[in-house]
Amino acid sequence: MKIIIVGGSGTIGSAVAKALSERHTIIITGREHGDVRCDMTDPLSIRKMYQAIGEFDAVIATTGKVHFAELAAMTAEDYQIGLQNKLMGQVNLVLIGQHYINNQGSFTLTSGILSHDPIRTGSSAAMINGAINSFVKSAAIELASGIRINAVSPTIVTESMPVYGDYFRGFEPVDAARVALSYCKSIEGLQTGQIYRSGY
Amino acid sequence: MKIIIVGGSGTIGSAVAKALSERHTIIITGREHGDVRCDMTDPLSIRKMYQAIGEFDAVIATTGKVHFAELAAMTAEDYQIGLQNKLMGQVNLVLIGQHYINNQGSFTLTSGILSHDPIRTGSSAAMINGAINSFVKSAAIELASGIRINAVSPTIVTESMPVYGDYFRGFEPVDAARVALSYCKSIEGLQTGQIYRSGY
Repeated sequence: MKIIIVGGSGTIGSAVAKALSERHTIIITGREHGDVRCDMTDPLSIRKMYQAIGEFDAVIATTGKVHFAELAAMTAEDYQIGLQNKLMGQVNLVLIGQHYINNQGSFTLTSGILSHDPIRTGSSAAMINGAINSFVKSAAIELASGIRINAVSPTIVTESMPVYGDYFRGFEPVDAARVALSYCKSIEGLQTGQIYRSGY
Repeated sequence: MKIIIVGGSGTIGSAVAKALSERHTIIITGREHGDVRCDMTDPLSIRKMYQAIGEFDAVIATTGKVHFAELAAMTAEDYQIGLQNKLMGQVNLVLIGQHYINNQGSFTLTSGILSHDPIRTGSSAAMINGAINSFVKSAAIELASGIRINAVSPTIVTESMPVYGDYFRGFEPVDAARVALSYCKSIEGLQTGQIYRSGY
């Protein structure tokens, strides 16, 4: 298969690329890194990416920004960061990609544990992860026959503990290599509309 | 209690107002109807509403627009309607209201069954409902001590079947008066961080 990983230079993305590259052709894309550049918040940039790549069988999104701050300090603008970046960036990849992807292809998005296991400062992350999970369940029944979509919802990854560990005390971290398995299941299996909890 | 119902002139809102008015003081607000006018997509308008009303004990949101269309035809802009109206409108009421609400007060938002029981054309509604549910679970742990937040997630209401029935074939409708009970439980009970499924 020819697989596009948007955010494939990040912690999870590079572990996914490593796991899948043993069996498939991987194209890494990102705003600042990768084989093809793509800003997923810009539909035109996504369209150009798909056209530059040509035929493909799977799209994985392992990227997206969200603002972390205490609820009492959060403003409407703070939520827009997650809404326009992590949420609509990933959704844009599906909206546009559905018209380019090969038959039997699949999309795999990334949400996260905070949708239902919240932490201080995580109200935007929770919102965005919940939105992605429900979008995936709904899009799965509407995508053209043969096209699938799933989300991977990881807990905190071990490699991110030095930076984010203080937010996730008591959460058992999972190695990125283990999270990568969920993406393999999504792409190399046949399920659709699934939210794969990873590491918890 | 003094209870603000944003969207209190709508199908669910008016049933909630009727149920709660037997025991409490109700203030109906809305963009075009109500005792006090308020555009919940505009933080300034919300702030003015809270200042005009003065002390209050509960805020209920029973309103919010979402765009319905088939996934193959949906654009990034179409999703913005739900994100900025139903989602951020309701979230704005909490973000600003948390600084005005009386101690022991509560917020009750409205999501809906489509977050996990999807229909054709419902991918934006699903996304928004999932976002509201996860926001509520996360906000509940961060709100100041004594302030609560829940969401009511109704199925299709009987009164809306003439207009929306074709989208919800096979769903058992619930009378708005029964959905109103979930709002009473949220406001007159002591639970927080709950998603009350209503009618299913």
